[in-house]
Amino acid sequence: MIFVNDTHNPALKSFVDSANSGSTDFPIQNLPFAVFRRAGSKEDFRCGVAIGDQVLDLTALGKMHLLSGDAAQAVQTCSDSSLNRLMSLGAPAWSALRASLSRLLSIDSPHEGVLRGCLVPQADVEYDLPARIGDYTDFYASVHHATNVGKLFRPDQPLLPNYKWVPIGYHGRSSSIGVAGQSLKRPVGQVCGAGQTVPVTQASRRLDFELEMGLFIGSSNALGTSVSVDQAFDNIFGMCLLNDWSARDIQGWEYQPLGPFLSKNFGTTISPWVVTSEALAPFRAPFVRDAADPQPLPYLTSDRNSQRGSVNIALELSLETQAMRDAGVAPQVLCNGNFKDAAYWTPQQLVAHHTVNGCNLQSGDLLGTGTLSGPTPDSLGSLLEMTEGGKKSIAMSNGQMRTFLEDGDAIVIRAFCQSDSAVRIGFGECRGTILPATT
Amino acid sequence: MIFVNDTHNPALKSFVDSANSGSTDFPIQNLPFAVFRRAGSKEDFRCGVAIGDQVLDLTALGKMHLLSGDAAQAVQTCSDSSLNRLMSLGAPAWSALRASLSRLLSIDSPHEGVLRGCLVPQADVEYDLPARIGDYTDFYASVHHATNVGKLFRPDQPLLPNYKWVPIGYHGRSSSIGVAGQSLKRPVGQVCGAGQTVPVTQASRRLDFELEMGLFIGSSNALGTSVSVDQAFDNIFGMCLLNDWSARDIQGWEYQPLGPFLSKNFGTTISPWVVTSEALAPFRAPFVRDAADPQPLPYLTSDRNSQRGSVNIALELSLETQAMRDAGVAPQVLCNGNFKDAAYWTPQQLVAHHTVNGCNLQSGDLLGTGTLSGPTPDSLGSLLEMTEGGKKSIAMSNGQMRTFLEDGDAIVIRAFCQSDSAVRIGFGECRGTILPATT
Repeated sequence: MIFVNDTHNPALKSFVDSANSGSTDFPIQNLPFAVFRRAGSKEDFRCGVAIGDQVLDLTALGKMHLLSGDAAQAVQTCSDSSLNRLMSLGAPAWSALRASLSRLLSIDSPHEGVLRGCLVPQADVEYDLPARIGDYTDFYASVHHATNVGKLFRPDQPLLPNYKWVPIGYHGRSSSIGVAGQSLKRPVGQVCGAGQTVPVTQASRRLDFELEMGLFIGSSNALGTSVSVDQAFDNIFGMCLLNDWSARDIQGWEYQPLGPFLSKNFGTTISPWVVTSEALAPFRAPFVRDAADPQPLPYLTSDRNSQRGSVNIALELSLETQAMRDAGVAPQVLCNGNFKDAAYWTPQQLVAHHTVNGCNLQSGDLLGTGTLSGPTPDSLGSLLEMTEGGKKSIAMSNGQMRTFLEDGDAIVIRAFCQSDSAVRIGFGECRGTILPATT
Repeated sequence: MIFVNDTHNPALKSFVDSANSGSTDFPIQNLPFAVFRRAGSKEDFRCGVAIGDQVLDLTALGKMHLLSGDAAQAVQTCSDSSLNRLMSLGAPAWSALRASLSRLLSIDSPHEGVLRGCLVPQADVEYDLPARIGDYTDFYASVHHATNVGKLFRPDQPLLPNYKWVPIGYHGRSSSIGVAGQSLKRPVGQVCGAGQTVPVTQASRRLDFELEMGLFIGSSNALGTSVSVDQAFDNIFGMCLLNDWSARDIQGWEYQPLGPFLSKNFGTTISPWVVTSEALAPFRAPFVRDAADPQPLPYLTSDRNSQRGSVNIALELSLETQAMRDAGVAPQVLCNGNFKDAAYWTPQQLVAHHTVNGCNLQSGDLLGTGTLSGPTPDSLGSLLEMTEGGKKSIAMSNGQMRTFLEDGDAIVIRAFCQSDSAVRIGFGECRGTILPATT
């Protein structure tokens, strides 16, 4: 069950000072999970929770036997090298662990001394993927993105007739999902120029990013069963940031009739930190469907989803070129958007749709939202859209120009939730850097 | 390295009598792998090899310490509940184990007595999936299938311009792959009738099968590296039978622009037995490209692939209705084809294409070939093709008619390899049965 409870109390402070600054992504009201170890060590990866600029080592915490009941059971799963087992325990266990962590990390904690011994500075750690991702599905949930991309290919019919009925999605590649901080080689593949009939094999010249969020499945459903929209609120463990790198020239040649393949599966980057559904509860927002648009079919509808189905998450994407890094200037912000303005479907509708046919989702499975482009020119989630298919270049404030990504370019995605009645929480950073192709 | 060696000697006989009959799928020249346990038991699943009508329990064999060197190391991985670790050892280890098993199971075996203690009748076992399948990719490798399906949607341009250049593929769902013998519920989903603009949610009325084969990846490649066509001969562990169940009405409404999704991911059935690449070596066949067709791009070409890239595998698909089962009559054969006549690309080309962009394939990953329709009316691999999109019904010899599958229908796929100079080997059976939808 997801609700606004004591753990969201804006008055709550932590004994970890850095968690109490207004600028941190990780106040005590957040408590996101990651898999980490000390950088450069041979330690086993294990689960941790962010608090200010520290990681609380949950393996170390588990050994203290400070927790009881569901929380004690939950923390024992956190010595695993992935969050899968914690995810499989279900919402009551996640909630119990969160409540315990909130009390233990509070400024009134009776265990501050021993807890301090379980903290590791985030500056000193490296991350692994938060989960073993069995299956990765990518959706197409922004109607603005679908319209913008559709215009490039079908000016007279940008949106296909199914778009406003079907939460369009397709299966992606699990094996090539990496954690933020990674560097990725520019892919090589078949491309066929406009007006050409014979393709060539070359490094992609139209390399792009896609600003997305990821949903981690917590509770699984068995093959042959479906998950209702209301049940889906409880089945989603949390959300992360996701960059769906895309080679537009490879995509354009390969994608008919079965969809994108090599243009996407060379790499997908996600943030290390998973912000739990419970931490997002205070930022829930109504799911609004324009009167002119069809109402969703019954299996995609519920009162709770209409009232609280969306989430108010501010999104920001920046480009850092090699020249910016060399000159020590800040990355150039290319996009400022918001999940609730971009997504035509809620997270729960994506899960309900995915399972309406009996497809089994498993703990640790990842669902990408698709590119979260908003309705305004400053909230577009891909270079394809910003450059109108590569026709226009974008000028950076340092004078550099870009149509697509160049070697050495890094993309940084950030996101945060803010409201008048709650403490701001953030998602950390999802950074990936492009390396030259192997030739 | 894959070669024709002593293990293929047609004169070789086993002390297991049933392996020496001309009709068995599993003579001593085959030795396919599966994961099994005694049916209805609580035993751990473990790896076994088929010999005649028996399974050789490789965990039991490993405890005998009869093997040495690479074969001894290989057999120790076979007490796992999946073949992944054996697959990861690479072709020399697979070959060493095969050579040892061939000697141990031969009619001249010095260890017949103890080996007999490691045999379990196939009639008494149940199977699990042969591997933990990290990622599942489905290709579209039959030009006849692509043409037949294309004709239904684009009579003036059945084949898209990329088809003869790109081995078209897309990512499928790993979690819903099941092993032969399974029953699957008819899926529910959005469908939109011809001429309609508002979809409805209902059980699929156009449920179909697709006759395919699967390739199991043995040796992995790291992210950012590619596998050449020649290397791919060694990276493929073996092949199995695969039924890609497909709901045509759901597919028709959902698949634009990102490809099939819920129309496929409710279930895929594979055979328990994986026939190794080395067992298939005597049945290799030339890869032939019509002079009128473009030659493959360099990364899809090698001399070895041209000379021995394809495989001569006879394919058979049958339908068994509930009425046939009740009357005890044989299933109705719907399709007789051959892999080499159907596939426009070889297994090695599928692997080389999949990795040309640096995508990492992992041990245990599964690649489906796509529907293996041949050039003749009796070798079509789906009802969609046999019925020309549901326009014609098919008459069974018991008087029943079918356009698409009905509840209770079972589909049985079989395949075997045969040549003048080698002993016939088979793939066993891939059977799946359709249950009514949940309403």
